[in-house]
Amino acid sequence: MNIAVLGTGMVGRAIAGRLSQLGHAVIIGTRNPDATLARTDGDRMGNPSYQAWAAEHPAVQLATFADAVAGSELVVNATNGSAALEALTLAGAEHLAGKVILDIANPLDFSHGMPPTLFVKDTDSLGEQIQRAFPLSRVVKSLNTLNAALMVHPDLLPEGTSVFVSGNDPDAKSTVTAILAEFGHTDVIDLGDITSARGTEMLLPMWLRLMGALGTATFNFKIVR
Amino acid sequence: MNIAVLGTGMVGRAIAGRLSQLGHAVIIGTRNPDATLARTDGDRMGNPSYQAWAAEHPAVQLATFADAVAGSELVVNATNGSAALEALTLAGAEHLAGKVILDIANPLDFSHGMPPTLFVKDTDSLGEQIQRAFPLSRVVKSLNTLNAALMVHPDLLPEGTSVFVSGNDPDAKSTVTAILAEFGHTDVIDLGDITSARGTEMLLPMWLRLMGALGTATFNFKIVR
Repeated sequence: MNIAVLGTGMVGRAIAGRLSQLGHAVIIGTRNPDATLARTDGDRMGNPSYQAWAAEHPAVQLATFADAVAGSELVVNATNGSAALEALTLAGAEHLAGKVILDIANPLDFSHGMPPTLFVKDTDSLGEQIQRAFPLSRVVKSLNTLNAALMVHPDLLPEGTSVFVSGNDPDAKSTVTAILAEFGHTDVIDLGDITSARGTEMLLPMWLRLMGALGTATFNFKIVR
Repeated sequence: MNIAVLGTGMVGRAIAGRLSQLGHAVIIGTRNPDATLARTDGDRMGNPSYQAWAAEHPAVQLATFADAVAGSELVVNATNGSAALEALTLAGAEHLAGKVILDIANPLDFSHGMPPTLFVKDTDSLGEQIQRAFPLSRVVKSLNTLNAALMVHPDLLPEGTSVFVSGNDPDAKSTVTAILAEFGHTDVIDLGDITSARGTEMLLPMWLRLMGALGTATFNFKIVR
């Protein structure tokens, strides 16, 4: 499948690299490809520059948000939550129309220090904001409840865990569920329409507390029933 | 241990019944014991009247909030979240001083219909509100992330799952953790101080969506790591 991944950070790279490894044609979208490729410094978390990452993933292309999305069949929103609507707007509603948007972003607000708060919650969600802003697209919220490495390699954990899909379009959820299965997810729970993204986005404060308490991001929720 | 359980609903009954079965001396606290005992109708969920439940649990006493708490060593807040601060105020700060308050309530607001929203979240929590209102008490938030039956019988599920404690006082968390172990919980994760109650309280929207998606309340989160 031709897939556009918006965002060059940890999540975008993890998703793009894995999709490429699985045989998909992947283009990463960014605001300014030349600027992204020019940077040689790693980030504060110790991750290499995009340039260094790209050298190890030669099959993954880089383009503007609009160019990446124009030729894609599936769009993955792996931007920072606070930048998501702007990135999708730059990608172009006309390019997004009819397409599935797999939305992984979380509405984290770091402006008040740590731990971050949520800039939308409870009565609305980022997933719904995106669906409202791009009504001709089919938004599926998923994978926003676990670490980037585990999103694409759930087998790093000692047993199977759970991931979730929220969205208004059953076919779009099927498309995303098939991708999740390719990643190795064996328990994909359909939570319902896009309003159920409120549930998974509001998991983030718990996820952050657990990361602090456990001293690792290598954990996930398993829904035992 | 002498334990006061505030609240005569599903959660209060489940906790009180199990603690009594385990050999603790349990008094349930309610606003007006005579009125509670006089009602003969069950509730809308099909649960029997308190009178009928009490007949099957003769060792469990019923008293006012204040009388229940006065002689207790541990207080369990199993009220509706919206009534919690008032119930604890009626119990009396002087009776609560120095004691552990195991707070199970969730800040659910049903006034805007279903699904309920949270009347406090993200930058504060009900657990913190109670700790601030009763600074001489030692609040531990726990058990607010699963169904009443599973709180006290986690072995109803096919495998072990996780519960959480949040609170400022390590000894109080140890007291609660020992009670949780008596109930059968084998994975109790200490999330940190009482501000971490924001994490578990904000799980509720996800819990409600999962109940809808799975068609059962008999499920729980297991933190796989």
